[in-house]
Amino acid sequence: MSGDQEQSARLTRREMLKTSALAGAGFSLSRLGFDREWLLPGSVCSSKVPASAGTMMEVKFRGYDTVRVGIIGVGGRGSELLRALLPIEHIQVRAICDIVKEQVLIGQKAVTDAGQKEPHGYFRGDHDFERLCSRDDLDIIYIATPWEWHVPMALSAMRNGKHVALEVPAATTLEDCWALVDKSEQTRCHCTMLENRCYGHHEMMVLNMIRDGVFGNILHGETAYIHRVHGLPVVNEGEGLWRNFPHMKRMGNLYPTHGLGPLARYMDINRGDRFESISSVSSIARGLALHEVARMPAGKSMRKACFGREINTSVITTATGRTVTLQHDIIDPRTYDRLSMVVGTKGAFRDYPPMVCIGRPEQDAWTTLDVYKDRYEDSLWTGVRGCAGNPCRHGDMDSIMNRRLIQCMREGLAPDIDVYDAATWSASGPLSILSMEKGGAPVQFPDFTRGKALSLRA
Amino acid sequence: MSGDQEQSARLTRREMLKTSALAGAGFSLSRLGFDREWLLPGSVCSSKVPASAGTMMEVKFRGYDTVRVGIIGVGGRGSELLRALLPIEHIQVRAICDIVKEQVLIGQKAVTDAGQKEPHGYFRGDHDFERLCSRDDLDIIYIATPWEWHVPMALSAMRNGKHVALEVPAATTLEDCWALVDKSEQTRCHCTMLENRCYGHHEMMVLNMIRDGVFGNILHGETAYIHRVHGLPVVNEGEGLWRNFPHMKRMGNLYPTHGLGPLARYMDINRGDRFESISSVSSIARGLALHEVARMPAGKSMRKACFGREINTSVITTATGRTVTLQHDIIDPRTYDRLSMVVGTKGAFRDYPPMVCIGRPEQDAWTTLDVYKDRYEDSLWTGVRGCAGNPCRHGDMDSIMNRRLIQCMREGLAPDIDVYDAATWSASGPLSILSMEKGGAPVQFPDFTRGKALSLRA
Repeated sequence: MSGDQEQSARLTRREMLKTSALAGAGFSLSRLGFDREWLLPGSVCSSKVPASAGTMMEVKFRGYDTVRVGIIGVGGRGSELLRALLPIEHIQVRAICDIVKEQVLIGQKAVTDAGQKEPHGYFRGDHDFERLCSRDDLDIIYIATPWEWHVPMALSAMRNGKHVALEVPAATTLEDCWALVDKSEQTRCHCTMLENRCYGHHEMMVLNMIRDGVFGNILHGETAYIHRVHGLPVVNEGEGLWRNFPHMKRMGNLYPTHGLGPLARYMDINRGDRFESISSVSSIARGLALHEVARMPAGKSMRKACFGREINTSVITTATGRTVTLQHDIIDPRTYDRLSMVVGTKGAFRDYPPMVCIGRPEQDAWTTLDVYKDRYEDSLWTGVRGCAGNPCRHGDMDSIMNRRLIQCMREGLAPDIDVYDAATWSASGPLSILSMEKGGAPVQFPDFTRGKALSLRA
Repeated sequence: MSGDQEQSARLTRREMLKTSALAGAGFSLSRLGFDREWLLPGSVCSSKVPASAGTMMEVKFRGYDTVRVGIIGVGGRGSELLRALLPIEHIQVRAICDIVKEQVLIGQKAVTDAGQKEPHGYFRGDHDFERLCSRDDLDIIYIATPWEWHVPMALSAMRNGKHVALEVPAATTLEDCWALVDKSEQTRCHCTMLENRCYGHHEMMVLNMIRDGVFGNILHGETAYIHRVHGLPVVNEGEGLWRNFPHMKRMGNLYPTHGLGPLARYMDINRGDRFESISSVSSIARGLALHEVARMPAGKSMRKACFGREINTSVITTATGRTVTLQHDIIDPRTYDRLSMVVGTKGAFRDYPPMVCIGRPEQDAWTTLDVYKDRYEDSLWTGVRGCAGNPCRHGDMDSIMNRRLIQCMREGLAPDIDVYDAATWSASGPLSILSMEKGGAPVQFPDFTRGKALSLRA
């Protein structure tokens, strides 16, 4: 399907939704942007484009025959992304950067093993990524580095006229969220966020069901990142870099996007609705001390470190009056869960295991999501092994996510997740900290879309 | 087991907990009141006792050979309670009151069918309950009437020197919560609340597990009242009295105690910890209009009524730093659920179905609660059919609840749920409304125990 055909298909689908039962209920939730925004020209991402304050919402990639990729960061996460990228047709990995030379060499070998030309390697210290960004043969730069490097690297890439695919969270401060938005608008380069949970088998199927009105008007959602990580270092290296260490310095929900991403898409956040406020509290920290610090050598300074809080619970309200609960717990004993729950006037979905409850008087009952597979499984998952009721495998979600991003670039579509989504979802981190500092009082989300999120409402 | 033996057994159990692993973690959650409070004399509930500001916490019933019961309200709920009471030995139902004479007659027949003398009937209008309260042959008065009558009736009963067993919620305003506390302290009459969910099979087993330290330090809990009620009248009669009608007038969580009661007991609320603040938001109301109002005759004024909000989500923090989420939804399609979840440093429990996750490095996994049945099933449930993974039957919980209350009265124990619990749990209703009026800002719980809740901390 060509880009035009794809766009046309989407338009038809959206047009259809406008006249669906949803609209009949006087509150068309799936009315997302069938208006002038769709007619914007494709993104001409370039360092030479003059500054512009125009929106990047629904701005389409210009269309690429071959997508030329650079990657900054090929440690644990970056090499997973590379593995997911390489089997995709019509891409070329042209450059790889990491501060650890060995990781660059491993990455280069993976690329040549996949039959591609050896990509250029960059490993001359913390700022060698700038040389990668300034190459003139890249279309998009993947960034999978420690959190504090996300924004400087993304800004450098966009300054150099490259689209960006940034790991989660895109940013950890409100200022940095705005910096990404400003730069994307100025350079006309997209800054998408690599939130692979949006590409889970269940999540994509549920999104299709929501857009088809199966659940009626969406009123409430619940999500979380519950992932007990045993025995990881409580130090600033390896996975400790992002899993444990930040919790010693800051309270709040430091890792919100895995849960929030899919739910924001279910609720058309930034496409007819927007996150308005968040209030946030956390439980005392007892498990962290019990499980993590206790096994560190006595006398080591880390043992005495002050761990602030442990299980974070945030409540988000939206401009149209929906509510969302968002939780974070990486310490206490529960199996991996994102608690995914979405409740509409006609039905509800919850995970795990994935269950659907479609309301019928006197006989509400949860049934397995599988019942809806034939009709609503996303075509990107066709032929891919499913998840059999369990959380999807990382690699599968990464694969679908990257396939979809490359598809959007090649076919000249807008990215599913744009810089406004990246900024909004990520902002819930610093906003949760701000709310906790105010004793759990609600704090307002910035409207990164500058008013356009709600202008798309029916 | 005599009252003294029972008390002695409890003391020994509490003493044991003091030295358990919990205490070793520096945060003894189950340290509940093994101190002077236990040595208070038994309650001499009488209209002739002079006013006193002394606490009613852990005040023991004086001990009764036979418990003489009066019941006000034998409609839908009251007749269920009567059915649950009648099989219990050593009780006599002496008086029954209802504004509907037929209901009184049905109640009287139920009592004589059970082999007891016919109780006196009161049905001469709204205030005939006062004649029942003034009898001199009753030890406790059950009250199962519409919400707005709970407090005036309970106050009348206590003024007349009768203990009170009050349906949920005990009160719907903070002033009325305080009125119950003041009157209970003045008259030395207990005002317990008939929160039958505290007597569920799972809930009692989990409480025993928590008190034995199975879950470690309790950090977080989640609960709800999710009970879609199809086709009930949106009018002020029958079940509409409390299920639907109040939602037309007020926003917030109007029915909080079913979820909160068990969780408060898990967290030793008012016995070492206390609810400190609550913040509350609600989703827009769409389902209520869709499912309930739509089926009313066109033109009926109720169709035009303004329904405020629908799915309420509240977050409670406790003085020792735990967090609780509390939800209310009686409209949208989900099966009955109280979402019961409690998370501790060593394990977690969730319902339904009832699952336990005890943390072991690298292999957290949920197992069925049944595994713990032999060791932790509450003795009150021994021989009673279980719930087979489903919500317990109403009648079974009612039966256990009433058996336990009568046991406490006969053996001279303190009630499990005292006036402070009734006031605290019920207060979350009006406090949620207050928070919503302040845009979801946290509002403080009154300390109905007047500082004693925390004085019981280790």
